[in-house]
Amino acid sequence: MSQTIRDNLKRMLAPRHVAFVGGRSMARALKRCAEGGYPGQMWLVNPQHDSLEGVPCVRSVADLPCGPDAVFIATNRDLTLTCVAELAAIGTGGAICYASGFAETGAEGQALQQQLLEAAGDMALLGPNCYGLLDYLHSSALWPVAHGGKAVEKGVAVLTQSGNFAYNLSMSDRSLPVAYMASVGNQAQLGVAELMDVLLDEPRVTAIGLHLEGLKNVPGFARAAHKALEKGIPIIALKTGVSQIGAELALSHTSSLSGSDALYDALFDRLGVIRVSGPVSFVETLKAAACGNLPAGNSLIALACSGGDAGLIADYAERNELALPKLDAGQVGELAEVLPSYANLVNPLDFTTAIWGDGEALNRMLDSALRTEADAAMLVLDYPAEFTGERKECDLLLDLYCKALVRHGKTGFVTSAFPELLPAHAREQLHAQGVAALQGVEDGLAAWGRIAGYQRNRQALLALGESALVPLCPQALEGEGQLLNEWDSKQALRAFGLPTPNGVLSNPDNALNDAQALGYPLVLKAVSAQLPHKTEAGAVALNLKDSAALSAALDNMRANIAAYAPGVPFDQVLLEPMAKPPLAELIVGIKRENDFGLALVIGAGGILVELLKDSRSLLLPTTDGAIRQALLSLRSAPLLQGFRGREVADLDALVAAIRAVADYACENAAQLLELDVNPLLVGAHGTTAVDALIRIAHA
Amino acid sequence: MSQTIRDNLKRMLAPRHVAFVGGRSMARALKRCAEGGYPGQMWLVNPQHDSLEGVPCVRSVADLPCGPDAVFIATNRDLTLTCVAELAAIGTGGAICYASGFAETGAEGQALQQQLLEAAGDMALLGPNCYGLLDYLHSSALWPVAHGGKAVEKGVAVLTQSGNFAYNLSMSDRSLPVAYMASVGNQAQLGVAELMDVLLDEPRVTAIGLHLEGLKNVPGFARAAHKALEKGIPIIALKTGVSQIGAELALSHTSSLSGSDALYDALFDRLGVIRVSGPVSFVETLKAAACGNLPAGNSLIALACSGGDAGLIADYAERNELALPKLDAGQVGELAEVLPSYANLVNPLDFTTAIWGDGEALNRMLDSALRTEADAAMLVLDYPAEFTGERKECDLLLDLYCKALVRHGKTGFVTSAFPELLPAHAREQLHAQGVAALQGVEDGLAAWGRIAGYQRNRQALLALGESALVPLCPQALEGEGQLLNEWDSKQALRAFGLPTPNGVLSNPDNALNDAQALGYPLVLKAVSAQLPHKTEAGAVALNLKDSAALSAALDNMRANIAAYAPGVPFDQVLLEPMAKPPLAELIVGIKRENDFGLALVIGAGGILVELLKDSRSLLLPTTDGAIRQALLSLRSAPLLQGFRGREVADLDALVAAIRAVADYACENAAQLLELDVNPLLVGAHGTTAVDALIRIAHA
Repeated sequence: MSQTIRDNLKRMLAPRHVAFVGGRSMARALKRCAEGGYPGQMWLVNPQHDSLEGVPCVRSVADLPCGPDAVFIATNRDLTLTCVAELAAIGTGGAICYASGFAETGAEGQALQQQLLEAAGDMALLGPNCYGLLDYLHSSALWPVAHGGKAVEKGVAVLTQSGNFAYNLSMSDRSLPVAYMASVGNQAQLGVAELMDVLLDEPRVTAIGLHLEGLKNVPGFARAAHKALEKGIPIIALKTGVSQIGAELALSHTSSLSGSDALYDALFDRLGVIRVSGPVSFVETLKAAACGNLPAGNSLIALACSGGDAGLIADYAERNELALPKLDAGQVGELAEVLPSYANLVNPLDFTTAIWGDGEALNRMLDSALRTEADAAMLVLDYPAEFTGERKECDLLLDLYCKALVRHGKTGFVTSAFPELLPAHAREQLHAQGVAALQGVEDGLAAWGRIAGYQRNRQALLALGESALVPLCPQALEGEGQLLNEWDSKQALRAFGLPTPNGVLSNPDNALNDAQALGYPLVLKAVSAQLPHKTEAGAVALNLKDSAALSAALDNMRANIAAYAPGVPFDQVLLEPMAKPPLAELIVGIKRENDFGLALVIGAGGILVELLKDSRSLLLPTTDGAIRQALLSLRSAPLLQGFRGREVADLDALVAAIRAVADYACENAAQLLELDVNPLLVGAHGTTAVDALIRIAHA
Repeated sequence: MSQTIRDNLKRMLAPRHVAFVGGRSMARALKRCAEGGYPGQMWLVNPQHDSLEGVPCVRSVADLPCGPDAVFIATNRDLTLTCVAELAAIGTGGAICYASGFAETGAEGQALQQQLLEAAGDMALLGPNCYGLLDYLHSSALWPVAHGGKAVEKGVAVLTQSGNFAYNLSMSDRSLPVAYMASVGNQAQLGVAELMDVLLDEPRVTAIGLHLEGLKNVPGFARAAHKALEKGIPIIALKTGVSQIGAELALSHTSSLSGSDALYDALFDRLGVIRVSGPVSFVETLKAAACGNLPAGNSLIALACSGGDAGLIADYAERNELALPKLDAGQVGELAEVLPSYANLVNPLDFTTAIWGDGEALNRMLDSALRTEADAAMLVLDYPAEFTGERKECDLLLDLYCKALVRHGKTGFVTSAFPELLPAHAREQLHAQGVAALQGVEDGLAAWGRIAGYQRNRQALLALGESALVPLCPQALEGEGQLLNEWDSKQALRAFGLPTPNGVLSNPDNALNDAQALGYPLVLKAVSAQLPHKTEAGAVALNLKDSAALSAALDNMRANIAAYAPGVPFDQVLLEPMAKPPLAELIVGIKRENDFGLALVIGAGGILVELLKDSRSLLLPTTDGAIRQALLSLRSAPLLQGFRGREVADLDALVAAIRAVADYACENAAQLLELDVNPLLVGAHGTTAVDALIRIAHA
């Protein structure tokens, strides 16, 4: 994104004047914008009418007194092209193209979209095929339909690939404070990455929510997400396409998306992006991030007025890695004085309904409970229906709770067992005081757990340094490429520092002589790029103890290959010393996903590969620290750490070996199609790659 | 539960007349009951007033014209005892005791509760320490406070250990049709099991929801849940106490609960009880069970009006094991005629908003989509806010969808992306037509997945036969009991059919002679109940190839034991043939949980026990089919099924071996404290237990 586009986008995100281009629906859009309190100048551009729905019209873009900071274009596809060019010519800040029929429809539309992009030049361009931009900081609604939001002083930014999702979210009854909401459409010019980058410069944006089918610009996304991590602005992502059918839908619904879902996890993990699974966790996690002060850690003092709620809190706290430190003796003593004898004086505290409506007793309870080292406080409260006349006691409790939080300098939140039983007036009262109102105790504690985890994770991620490295984004390659044989593969990796056995490349005639120099026991393998599956071909013989065994193995192998792969010459063999039994076997490989990244995949090998399905993916480039962390997070990590009295693996050597594979891959990223080191034998005094395979694109 | 209590409980669940005993709050409770439409006779019993709040009072229980079918007693603890006795004397059906201060407070309260129970005699008794009973089939509200429910023709029964949970659930804005809701309190007489049993005889109860901290009567629960399984009435359980802190809370909040959470899972699994994790999934799953006709299978045709929603559906369907069969060519052709060119003609179908409000086009779309083999249909629809004036198109779509379901004879449901965007009028319209209105696409598809899974699972569970077997419920035992040595343990299990090696019990002096008869290679082990950890004691020698090796091993072992366990005599040894390397090692054990059950635990052994933490628990008694299913559900099950070209395990022999352990445990349930067979070696031609340990209580 050029600096000029960036500046123009900033104009669009804080517009002094806006224009709407189109017919009656745009007159209504303009009126909604005005009704929402937008204070700036507004124009309606329509060539055929003096006024529409009572709104006077400007006849053409050329008649505008200046280039508006932001324009919503709701004309058809072809007129949109003209209009964008005209707007760019008069120095417009940004234009939003509502029309569809561009890249999402195929090659012809793709070409039109390219024309659109060129017509925009350095003007900011959102869409085409999008619902536009809701800006609740400046009350500007560049939006074709109704929306349910309202002005805020600060709040979250939501970027979505679905206009319908944005529409529904704006109608949701959850008091999410939204600063910006953008429907990004085809992302011809401004995409998720570009918008994130600029939104992060707005200090009133407290968190960013992304609803994605996929990314178009992985490096740009990574740069923006790293910037967010440095600033401490949580990014919450709802990414669909987890399932097979979902991935196919994502592919057909927008253009040129790629990256398997597992690589999205790898990308999000390295950048501290919080992934959520649905609309509810999306909104509630954004609320936890946006409405309170982020908690310094994961401990909680929890308050409820029933044993049933306390039981739910206990279970959800553990599930979400939230600690519930014990009450101290002083707290227990004080609480015993104010609460009835049947109250269970623990954390989570069921303070019972005995003190319901009794302000003094509630305050004493709150003062005891909040005198705690815990990082935050929580309260579970469900409002009964209005008709009961019993809501004022709830209001009283909330009021006292908020004041007590201030008195004790605590971050806090409130949640209800049933999401709908925390009504709007209560939520708004809480949010106004920086207390998150999270709806549903299960979703609420999950949301809080994510935010507390983000805080713990953030410094560690920044220290690891991986988030600052922009992922490689390899382009598609033609053809199957060329398979290197085992010897060449090992030599190539050895040059980057991967330890391989001290073997000898020989041939069937010289093998006995060469073996003499190498010593027994040894391993014999046929070397040929035409035999990628050596074991199946009978082209591997292990643990040969002497020359007789080697001689027999050579004869045997010749026959095996002749039967398995007739015509493949048996002309090169590899002799290697027999490896000692390792502490663990690993598989290390590189997975290429065009336009997304190169992933280093580290997994358990041997028998465990199938039983444990135990692997971790790291996008490249990566750091030694991240490699070490991935290794130690394997289910089979105990094998590296002195399992059942065995020796401890030399982790430094293991990380260095894997680093060599990563370095080779980074250096050869443009051509590398496939790389597998299997097995990598891990010992107490070093690591050895006993087999390796590389496939490289033809130069 | 005696037949008389049972009959009296049935009176309480369909009362012709009700009484309230207490002061002003009971006058209000009586008036709420009247306002709720209760048609029967009502009395207020108060000794001090002629009338309260305009309700005339009867001065004493003795003055009542007959024993009411149901009575709510809101007096203090001591008067409650008297009142219960008086009510029982005049032939009352059932009494609800609101007062607390009984078993939940300790020994004194426990004694009072026993008196209460005796005073009730054959009268049904709910509580004490409970909120009572809401009966929306007969509009009777035996309940001390307000509630938000309303009369239904059929619906679910909810039983909860938390009055507050019941109160909040009654206030929830989710249109759950509730037939009965009971707060069970201390369960002195009527508990969850007894209520379930009787509620299952009411054909208007469509599902049962349980909110539990624990069970008091596991055999009774199992009998009732089996009855439900036979009738096809789903049981949905929200059980807390999953976490450590939660389990402690459950223990202190109610009396005498037991059973680790894993055993609850085992109990629920064998009975087809659906376990949910929170209030939202509880209500939504109950709605899925109660409001529609249960689906015959797990396939769906899914409809949405945006790509964003379709993406969510695809992911959640896969996660919840719901299939989305492809549209056939005929459907695609028809849909192409009615939908715009950019519509993606797949399942889930994004039918776009292009046909929004166009009844004819919507009907054509529905008729094409619903002409399917799929077991059910679903529609995602979010209502915008009222002010938009755009709700009528939503109403139209729902109406056409319901009619199309009837036309095509399909079961169906509706869900919204955001839970709150399916408003009450829409939910009620849907429920009236047997279409479940599930709030939130993520929770909604999870709920539907559970119900579809229940249907698939039910016949299989009934065929397995395990659900009909009432779990053993062992009582607590005193003391540590007595450890049997390996030889005695093996002999005891061998008597029940567990294959063990054909070994010889010998002593160090005769070992060489006995070995001669047995043959080499063999295993030598010291036999002593004082050496439960033989390996650590150096009291096991494997793979002894000849008499010299045996002789050396005997000397070595004598020295080891003298050093490890001075004073333990080395006077008995076991000689066994060395076992062949197995296909897999398993651990089979018995876990006793007093007052809950005996669990047969089957897990991966050897190196995998720590890495995979791979085990399944079955409550006893169990069936061969369930044992087989547990084995095949292990993560390490591939080792039994021809892993990497190895032989296939003899599963029949393996099941028979585990059956022997289970039979021994059932026969000795009253005394058995501990049993471990580790390892059980599994081969292609049989199974052998090479070590076993039993601990039995002193007789």
